[in-house]
Amino acid sequence: MADTPDTISIIPVRGIPEIMPGDDLVKIVSRAVKELGLSFLDGDIVVFAQKIISKAENRIVKLSEVAPSPFALTLSREVSKDPRLVEVILSETTKIIKMDQRKPEKGRLIVETRGGIISANAGVDASNVSGGDSVTLLPVDSDLSAENLVRGFKSAAGVEIAVIITDTVGRPWREGLVDIAIGCSGIRPLRDYRGRKDSKGLVLNATVMAVADEIASAAGLVMEKADSVPVVIVRGYGFEKGGGGAGDLIRNPEDDLFR
Amino acid sequence: MADTPDTISIIPVRGIPEIMPGDDLVKIVSRAVKELGLSFLDGDIVVFAQKIISKAENRIVKLSEVAPSPFALTLSREVSKDPRLVEVILSETTKIIKMDQRKPEKGRLIVETRGGIISANAGVDASNVSGGDSVTLLPVDSDLSAENLVRGFKSAAGVEIAVIITDTVGRPWREGLVDIAIGCSGIRPLRDYRGRKDSKGLVLNATVMAVADEIASAAGLVMEKADSVPVVIVRGYGFEKGGGGAGDLIRNPEDDLFR
Repeated sequence: MADTPDTISIIPVRGIPEIMPGDDLVKIVSRAVKELGLSFLDGDIVVFAQKIISKAENRIVKLSEVAPSPFALTLSREVSKDPRLVEVILSETTKIIKMDQRKPEKGRLIVETRGGIISANAGVDASNVSGGDSVTLLPVDSDLSAENLVRGFKSAAGVEIAVIITDTVGRPWREGLVDIAIGCSGIRPLRDYRGRKDSKGLVLNATVMAVADEIASAAGLVMEKADSVPVVIVRGYGFEKGGGGAGDLIRNPEDDLFR
Repeated sequence: MADTPDTISIIPVRGIPEIMPGDDLVKIVSRAVKELGLSFLDGDIVVFAQKIISKAENRIVKLSEVAPSPFALTLSREVSKDPRLVEVILSETTKIIKMDQRKPEKGRLIVETRGGIISANAGVDASNVSGGDSVTLLPVDSDLSAENLVRGFKSAAGVEIAVIITDTVGRPWREGLVDIAIGCSGIRPLRDYRGRKDSKGLVLNATVMAVADEIASAAGLVMEKADSVPVVIVRGYGFEKGGGGAGDLIRNPEDDLFR
């Protein structure tokens, strides 16, 4: 009944307290892991929900201190959103991809962020933030945030781990949200199987897998309970080291049939 | 160092032989699981790569027996594909979503299948099929295939499991492929967290998670090795029973900002 040796474990790290600006996530997560009777192992992938990175990095804006621009005011009427929230979204946006003008009551505003992520509201989020009128923004550079965490765990606990930072996004064509990797370090986010042979000796084609996104989704399964599990350990996946961060997952617009 | 009780295990089922038309997948998979020293537990989710379902259901076409239509001939020149392959793709297609006319050498043809899945080449696939000129098609009704497997495991082994059938697809905006659920039974593919309160007591909005796709991606992490692992057990995820199959994951075009 035991698992096989090549089983991957998706381990939720419960007991992480509310994160405040300036908090030391390496210390806090290490303590929570220890209290669960666990320790980190070399080769673990530690998956962080974007929200606690944003809080620790003080990526918090009080809407009461935001003055919406004339454009934000106009746009806010078209999508039925708070104009101050629209102002914050626009400050994170490089391009408006879609907005729902047919059904303004649904208030959907799909944009491209500075980091190249395409998501609703540029990842600006009001849930789980202290103070009724505060929202969080995505980390300024999620790959760098991940890199700092990898370095922090190395220096605090001597372990060689990889870090993935995730966000929850909608998708064209399919219902429901999934978690994707918006930052990573220590793991190559794409895994290239091209040129390898399948079990019939035929060369496989078109099989570059977005493994960082698949890991993000796996971790998302245990993160889903109202943000009570912002950190997940993915153990037993033999990933490839290296890569250029989650930026590797952003498709070049010229190669994107869907633009 | 042991996992926590709420850990999810992603268990690859190795040792599954090549599947032939008419094979009894319940029997074959049960035997492989037993040889690994495992047994199924109530509440397991058994994830099947589409390819072995298609083979068992004889969804195999010999290209040498295909006569391309005039339209297939024209289209095949535009996307630099074998016209017989294009004919097979068109037979599975309800709508051509995109084709790459800028770079025909890349030969991309993105279509909507009868099942509502949007993917390259309608899921028609030449890898891992016996006989050089054979290709597989997606199952006719993947939800029904999943339902039959759930029933089969119940009657053969007395276990209440859920089944997800997956395919590997590309996505707009993001590099790399991920695995998604094209069929499921015994599990509600969407999980609705709306109305639930977050840890600050705020009502969560817009959090309907596509858990079946997240499970497909988690399983994909151990399926990726040249199709040698076509079945994966996902154990320890407390899913919701019911739902209308993976068709629930197909977004109504009228609600889809991206159409």
